[in-house]
Amino acid sequence: MQELYHYRKLIDDSLGKYLTAKEPKNLYEPISYFLNIGGKRIRPVLVLMGYRMFHQQIEHAISQAIAIELFHNFTLVHDDIMDSAEVRRGQTTVHKKWNEPIAILSGDLLLIKAYDHLCDAPSSVLSPILDSFSKMAVEVCEGQQMDMDFENVASIHEDNYIEMIRKKTAVLIGAAIQIGALRAGAGLTEASLLYEFGVNLGLAFQMLDDYLDVYGQPEKTGKMQGGDIVAGKKTLLYLHCLHHASESARNELRKIYDKNSIMSDSDRIRLAKDLFISTGSDIYLKSKAEDFYRISVNLLKSSEFSGTQIKPLLELAEMLMGRDF
Amino acid sequence: MQELYHYRKLIDDSLGKYLTAKEPKNLYEPISYFLNIGGKRIRPVLVLMGYRMFHQQIEHAISQAIAIELFHNFTLVHDDIMDSAEVRRGQTTVHKKWNEPIAILSGDLLLIKAYDHLCDAPSSVLSPILDSFSKMAVEVCEGQQMDMDFENVASIHEDNYIEMIRKKTAVLIGAAIQIGALRAGAGLTEASLLYEFGVNLGLAFQMLDDYLDVYGQPEKTGKMQGGDIVAGKKTLLYLHCLHHASESARNELRKIYDKNSIMSDSDRIRLAKDLFISTGSDIYLKSKAEDFYRISVNLLKSSEFSGTQIKPLLELAEMLMGRDF
Repeated sequence: MQELYHYRKLIDDSLGKYLTAKEPKNLYEPISYFLNIGGKRIRPVLVLMGYRMFHQQIEHAISQAIAIELFHNFTLVHDDIMDSAEVRRGQTTVHKKWNEPIAILSGDLLLIKAYDHLCDAPSSVLSPILDSFSKMAVEVCEGQQMDMDFENVASIHEDNYIEMIRKKTAVLIGAAIQIGALRAGAGLTEASLLYEFGVNLGLAFQMLDDYLDVYGQPEKTGKMQGGDIVAGKKTLLYLHCLHHASESARNELRKIYDKNSIMSDSDRIRLAKDLFISTGSDIYLKSKAEDFYRISVNLLKSSEFSGTQIKPLLELAEMLMGRDF
Repeated sequence: MQELYHYRKLIDDSLGKYLTAKEPKNLYEPISYFLNIGGKRIRPVLVLMGYRMFHQQIEHAISQAIAIELFHNFTLVHDDIMDSAEVRRGQTTVHKKWNEPIAILSGDLLLIKAYDHLCDAPSSVLSPILDSFSKMAVEVCEGQQMDMDFENVASIHEDNYIEMIRKKTAVLIGAAIQIGALRAGAGLTEASLLYEFGVNLGLAFQMLDDYLDVYGQPEKTGKMQGGDIVAGKKTLLYLHCLHHASESARNELRKIYDKNSIMSDSDRIRLAKDLFISTGSDIYLKSKAEDFYRISVNLLKSSEFSGTQIKPLLELAEMLMGRDF
C-alpha cells in the first residue's frame, strides 16, 4: 500500500507544527510530547481515504484528518488519567511525566484544537461534518463511562460489552471515514454506508486488539502480554469463558480477576490463558472479530461504489485484520 | 431590568432538558447536578443581549447562549479538579461528590455539548461564530495554565496578572456578546467592538470579584471572606502591596501567603487585609476595576450603535459593577 505511507507522511508533516511548543510551555509541551510518541495514525489515514473515494486532492481534507488524530489523542491523554496508566506506547503518560492538572488541561486543549481543525472547511459541508463529529464525540464519552462502570460489575452481557466498544472505539473509526467523505461533498447516504463500514471494522479491530493483548507477541505489539488480564478488563474472552466454564473454573476465573486475591501477575496470565483455551473463548473471540470484519467488507462490496473506489479501504481493512502487532 | 429576568428564564428553561439524566447515569447525573446548583447565568444572558442589538427574536440565539453556559460549566468542573476545590456555589464539587475520572469525563462531555449547541445555526453565520469560540476556548486554557504556573512564582508583573485574567475570565465575556451579535448576522467590525467591550468589562468584573473576595460580606457573596488569601492567590491586591510595602511588611506578606508558615486562616486574612489597606492596595484595585469599566462603557458610547441598542448592555454593566455579591 504505497498510498498509506504517502498519507502518513502528509499527516506527520501537518502535525509537525504542534511539535514546537508555544507559551505557556506547561500547556503546549505535553501536547507536543504526546503527539510525538507515535501511534499508527490509522484514523487520520481513514479520513484521507474517505475523501479520496470522491476527489483526488487529499490535501483538502488534511485539516479534518488532523482533527480526528487530535481528538483521538485527547481521549488517550484523559483515559490515561482515568485508568491511572503510567505507560502509553512505551513512554511515560502525560499525567505521570507532568501532573494531573496539566494532563487534564492539555487534553482539553487537544479537543478544542480538534474542533478548530475540523471546521477548516467550506461552509457548504460544515454542518454534516460537525453533526457526525459531535455524535461520535458524545458516544466516545459514553463508551468510556460504560467501560469504567463495567469494572464494578461482576458480569456483563456480551451485547453490552459490544455496545461499549462500539461507542468507545468503533464510532471514531466510522466517523473518520464518514467525515473524509463528507468533506469531499459525498451525499448523506453514501457517507452513512462508509460510517457503518468503519464501525464494523472498528469492532473487529478492537476484538483483535483484545486477542493480541493476551496471545500476541510482546516484541511485536510493544505491550506486555496479558495486560488486560492483570488490569481485570472484562473483554469478550473473560465474558465468554465465564458463561461456558464449569462451576469450579468459573470460580477460578473470578479469583484471577479479583485484584484482592494473592496471586502473581504471571500466574494470573498463565491461568487465564489456559482457562480461555479450555472453553474455546480464544477461538470464539477470533471468530467474532472475523464476523464483524466480514460484515464491513460486504457492506462495501455490495454498495454502489466502484471497485476502484473501495479498493484502498479493503486493502487497509485486510492489513489491519492480518496484523500481529 | 425586566429583560434580564426574561432572558434568564429562557436560559433556565432550555437548560431544563439537561436536568433529566440519561444513560450512563454516572456521566449524565453529574452534569445535571452541576447545572442545577445555579450560577448567575450572566454569560448566556450576554449572548442574548448581543443578538438583541440586531434582532428581536432572541429565541434564535438560545442555542448559542446555552453553548456559552455549558462551556463555562465545563471550565468550572475541570478547574475544581485542578484546584482541588471541594465546594462550588455552596455545594460539593463534582470530583468530590463522585470521583475524578467521572468529573474529567463529564467536563469533557460539557465541552462537546457546548460545540454541539454552538453549531445549531445557519451555515451562513457558522464560520465566524466558530472562529470566535475556538479562539476564546484556546485562550481560556492558556489562562488557566498561567494561573497554575503563577502559584509557583514568587512575584508576577501586574501586566502578566492582567493578561492571565484576560485569558482566563474576560475573553469568555467578550466572546459571549460577540457570538450573540454574529448569530444575528452582525458584521465582523461591529462584533469585534462588542468583544472588546466584553473583555474590558470582564477584566473589571474579575477585579471586583477579587476585591469582594477580601472585603465583601460573606452573607452576600456566599463565599468565605478571604478565600483567595488562604489559597495563596496572587491577585492584584497582593501584587500591588508587595511592590509598595516596606521591606518588613513585604516579608510579613510573603509569610502570610506561604502555606508552610504556621498561622491560622483567620490570622492570615486579618493581617493581609490590614497590609493591603496600609499600602492603599484595596483602593488601587477598585480604581483599576473602574478604569476597565470606564473603557468598556466608552467603547460602546463612542461607537456607531444607537442609544437604544446599547442601553441594555450599559445597564447590565452598571449592575455588575454596583454589586456587592
